[in-house]
Amino acid sequence: MDKVIQFEPTKEYLEKFREALENKDDSFIGESLDGVNSADITMLLEELNAEESKYVVDLLEKEVGSQIIKDLDSETRSKFLKIFQPVEIAGFVDLMDSDDAADIFNEMPAQIREEVIAALENEEKATYILDLLRYEDDVAGGLMAKELIRANENWTIKQCIEEIRRQRENVQKVYSVYVVDNKDRLKGRVSLKKLILTDDNGKVEDIYDEEIISVETYMPKEEVAAVIQKYDLETVPVVNVKGRLVGRITVDDIIDVITEQAEEERQLMAGISEDVEEDDSIWMLTRARLPWLVVGLAGGMIGAQFIQIFEEDLIKVTAIAFFIPLIMATGGNVGIQSSALIVQSLASPSAFMASTFNRLTKIFFVAIINGLFLSILVFLMIYLINDTDTELSFVVSIALFSVVFLASFLGTLIPILLHKMGINPALASGPFITTTIDLLGLAVYFLVAHLLYNP
Amino acid sequence: MDKVIQFEPTKEYLEKFREALENKDDSFIGESLDGVNSADITMLLEELNAEESKYVVDLLEKEVGSQIIKDLDSETRSKFLKIFQPVEIAGFVDLMDSDDAADIFNEMPAQIREEVIAALENEEKATYILDLLRYEDDVAGGLMAKELIRANENWTIKQCIEEIRRQRENVQKVYSVYVVDNKDRLKGRVSLKKLILTDDNGKVEDIYDEEIISVETYMPKEEVAAVIQKYDLETVPVVNVKGRLVGRITVDDIIDVITEQAEEERQLMAGISEDVEEDDSIWMLTRARLPWLVVGLAGGMIGAQFIQIFEEDLIKVTAIAFFIPLIMATGGNVGIQSSALIVQSLASPSAFMASTFNRLTKIFFVAIINGLFLSILVFLMIYLINDTDTELSFVVSIALFSVVFLASFLGTLIPILLHKMGINPALASGPFITTTIDLLGLAVYFLVAHLLYNP
Repeated sequence: MDKVIQFEPTKEYLEKFREALENKDDSFIGESLDGVNSADITMLLEELNAEESKYVVDLLEKEVGSQIIKDLDSETRSKFLKIFQPVEIAGFVDLMDSDDAADIFNEMPAQIREEVIAALENEEKATYILDLLRYEDDVAGGLMAKELIRANENWTIKQCIEEIRRQRENVQKVYSVYVVDNKDRLKGRVSLKKLILTDDNGKVEDIYDEEIISVETYMPKEEVAAVIQKYDLETVPVVNVKGRLVGRITVDDIIDVITEQAEEERQLMAGISEDVEEDDSIWMLTRARLPWLVVGLAGGMIGAQFIQIFEEDLIKVTAIAFFIPLIMATGGNVGIQSSALIVQSLASPSAFMASTFNRLTKIFFVAIINGLFLSILVFLMIYLINDTDTELSFVVSIALFSVVFLASFLGTLIPILLHKMGINPALASGPFITTTIDLLGLAVYFLVAHLLYNP
Repeated sequence: MDKVIQFEPTKEYLEKFREALENKDDSFIGESLDGVNSADITMLLEELNAEESKYVVDLLEKEVGSQIIKDLDSETRSKFLKIFQPVEIAGFVDLMDSDDAADIFNEMPAQIREEVIAALENEEKATYILDLLRYEDDVAGGLMAKELIRANENWTIKQCIEEIRRQRENVQKVYSVYVVDNKDRLKGRVSLKKLILTDDNGKVEDIYDEEIISVETYMPKEEVAAVIQKYDLETVPVVNVKGRLVGRITVDDIIDVITEQAEEERQLMAGISEDVEEDDSIWMLTRARLPWLVVGLAGGMIGAQFIQIFEEDLIKVTAIAFFIPLIMATGGNVGIQSSALIVQSLASPSAFMASTFNRLTKIFFVAIINGLFLSILVFLMIYLINDTDTELSFVVSIALFSVVFLASFLGTLIPILLHKMGINPALASGPFITTTIDLLGLAVYFLVAHLLYNP
């Protein structure tokens, strides 16, 4: 039995492997990778350069190589495929599912793509891929694979099983057989379990399950993910506007969609502008981070100019400066909390969404409670610590209440607006919006201070 | 054909439905829910109170009711099950998969749990559930279901199919048959596709696939999720320390794990201390948010006390106050960026993880580039805007450089330390750590200012 832990390459192994590569010790390479899952070999190859990887892949079976190329992250893959001839690439693509092949084609320069397509031996595959390239990659059509088992409703079980046999190489994972009518319109499905338990002479139309959930080609991938998740599906058939069965989406692709969504959200919240990872180059990391830092810096400069307007007040009461951090931090915290809550609820919509008005009413009460509690607390703290300075306590606590209020509303409203405009609402927890809330907080604070100290 | 969009209840429908409930119009309720997927009915019930929901569920088929109870979110379910008799609950549990049943049992008061178990008719199910209750819910054992198809390696295909027939009601979704030896140790699997295509008189031992990935009962659920994701599995068998097959985990449970992880991370980053959702009560929302706001407030008060130490400097050069927001905001942004990057890479570990030392070296260079760029930029801006005040420009840009540096290091190091201590590193992007970075930023700024203005 193979356990998951079976292949855990150590640093020592990696070194040995590199040595074997240098000496072209094909037998060591072949033996040590024999029977190892392609996903594990992929991890190993991510540590090597393109030439080394090609040397290894050339030693492996074509099927394994094809899996590895599919599994590589797209950046590594681009570098890797550059050193292959189009006809070599075509050899791997012939063995790939059409959805994976289409993803890879989308990454290739147009000319190479044409050459690879021309070199494909499997003509059905070529047609599949060309069909898939028509779809944007953020809708169901861009996620689906063309490979599936399709049975006419008039078939017998025997015909159905023959079809599975005919396609046994093409369709790796079969969960169910999709049933269509003469016009290729999706009618239902037969699970493999049912197929096994039914007499071979039975008819498909007598046993198929009509209650089938399908998605249409243009459904956004996030919605497809929600459908799969809601109904606990392992695969969902895709139909075109005429209801014709055109492909299927499997759950592993949906897991990738969900993971990507979470990563995108994290990067938006953190103010990272490109899809970078910690192991990317210093240059890429800097480029992804600097833009938002500059936005924050610009905000800070505006803040500085703004405070300068109230220089007189500051000279009169230096203590105003003491509480700038408190006001800013609280405003920021409240804003991020509010936007995180609304982003979460926008991400998992229920059938009866609260209206924007109802939402704001609720936010209103939560903000009042939080605001009152915090401003009373801060009033007491300043009063007790700073020699019972009532005036300053008032200024800070009134400003704090206003800031909590403002940040709650903006933190809720901005994500809703972004969502309505078709922009990812998680952006609202990012630096641009937090900078805005910071500046508004400062404005409120200094205005309140100015008004109370200059009656 | 049922499309996904088929059941999209409107507000009007909900009102009509409520009316029908009041008038006990059973025929309207029954007809309008006939053939509707249980996941959709669940969504509808989340809008009703417990008594109303019970009335609806009592009208539905037992299987549908059982699915609905499984799908309800745990808070609603607790309220809902309180108004059922143990024997009624047992009726639904009899029809549930053991993993779902165990989850529900974990939510029940101990006494009710005993009563429900005693009332179960399906004795095998009762044994399954009792077995599952032994596991913590954050390891493979707590995720797995006991229901699966198991075949002895010495069986014929015919026996194997008979076993599927015998279990047809118990095991809803069959992807493959697990092959065990006489001591019940997992040997491999046979996909249903292979089973269909092999002659009934063949032997299991001749066709089973030995390359099977399994997990052990005590594997943390995040690792199980990573395994399923890495190898694109739809289900993974669970073995105990002796290698005996004890259950299986299906991909739908793993999707839930991944979604929960993302949600937990979002709440940690936003400083929300409980698992709340926007539609929770005002009281719950306030309670989840206030603790972190108070932490931020305490930080702000410490900041105020700290700045007060430098009151003399502030009186001499009021302009120092102008740039407090700039320093704080940049420190915060850099800290969050750094921690988000490291959290992301800790969440998807590769075989050859960079060492902490290598990581910090890289962070070092990224921090120098970002810090230099930002401090030169701010130097020029202040110099140009504030009447060529060289001294102030120097103070702010040196402080900014130090803050960027400090925030980069802390933002990277703290998540790594938290991770090593077994704490979710996303906490490092939350208010506690950002408050700390804020305070350190202030300290650096005022110290630099003090030193440069008082040579």
